[in-house]
Amino acid sequence: MLYEFTVQSSRREEFILITGEINRILAEAGMKNGSCTVFIPHTTAAVTVNECADADVAADLLAFLARLVPASGAYRHREGNSDAHIKAALLGTSLHLIVREGKLDLGTWQGVFLAEFDGPRRRKVKVWA
Amino acid sequence: MLYEFTVQSSRREEFILITGEINRILAEAGMKNGSCTVFIPHTTAAVTVNECADADVAADLLAFLARLVPASGAYRHREGNSDAHIKAALLGTSLHLIVREGKLDLGTWQGVFLAEFDGPRRRKVKVWA
Amino acid sequence: MLYEFTVQSSRREEFILITGEINRILAEAGMKNGSCTVFIPHTTAAVTVNECADADVAADLLAFLARLVPASGAYRHREGNSDAHIKAALLGTSLHLIVREGKLDLGTWQGVFLAEFDGPRRRKVKVWA
Repeated sequence: MLYEFTVQSSRREEFILITGEINRILAEAGMKNGSCTVFIPHTTAAVTVNECADADVAADLLAFLARLVPASGAYRHREGNSDAHIKAALLGTSLHLIVREGKLDLGTWQGVFLAEFDGPRRRKVKVWA
Repeated sequence: MLYEFTVQSSRREEFILITGEINRILAEAGMKNGSCTVFIPHTTAAVTVNECADADVAADLLAFLARLVPASGAYRHREGNSDAHIKAALLGTSLHLIVREGKLDLGTWQGVFLAEFDGPRRRKVKVWA
Repeated sequence: MLYEFTVQSSRREEFILITGEINRILAEAGMKNGSCTVFIPHTTAAVTVNECADADVAADLLAFLARLVPASGAYRHREGNSDAHIKAALLGTSLHLIVREGKLDLGTWQGVFLAEFDGPRRRKVKVWA
């Protein structure tokens, strides 16, 4: 079944933890064991798995990407957010995750994040479970 | 069921939209709702989701990757295409996508692209649907 | 069904081929045709598909990432492995692969690698097949 939820970002760039939302959907879907797909239908945001125990890890990744992909440059796309498209492509728009005993089967330090690169915006996340 | 189609690239580096081909396969497979896997069995090309409304977005991403990963450098691999292997690894070789009412359930501006980094070549794309 | 195996890395950074381990699991699972998920429950290692015929390709990718993401820098995360978290995020923690006639349906030159960025460590790899 297809599920969807929304996330409101509050800055141009930030990582927002969505592990809890996905686990709520798995409970609603009644999925016990299996795999699920997490997909973001946007081109300037991504979904990624990384450490959620120390928020500095996500901060370091955001800062790295900001240095790697300058916000302004000789871009052809005229909407002023080419860097956001590039960062989203580097992290990716889909994840395929394992479900065990009704929850995402993640490592101890792992969380699923929505990576916002062109906020603040209201974003949709789709889950096939 | 496993499906396959081929794409002929015409330049060393380019993004080729393959959303239509995948939707044709979904129609052939008779898949209405679910998820599908798109996989490219090559090591110097990738599959990625990004904006398809403005071709400048793909052009900016190609130009960024060309600056990031120089075509020539102190590479050990002697076939002269190490940059292509690296770019392909950064974007990835597999996508897992949601299918709704017989079509890929993409966002308004999203398309699925074959990213060619060592063309022109004839490339295969595999779809499990 | 959920399967798991472990990999012992022997250096801080290295690519370890795990195609054979996954194929052994597929044989154990009795999966003939379909798709499987490969997931690594760690935040400083990744799973990726790339050329396995010439080990120089993996060496070039490791060297590129080492230049791209300096091991030391103005990182906030205090464990001294921020670069490893960033490299893992760039390659990704999950793969969704096609299975044909009981084996991974990879291209001629493709292999599945565990990418270690903060070893030596004992790593788990999970497979849903």
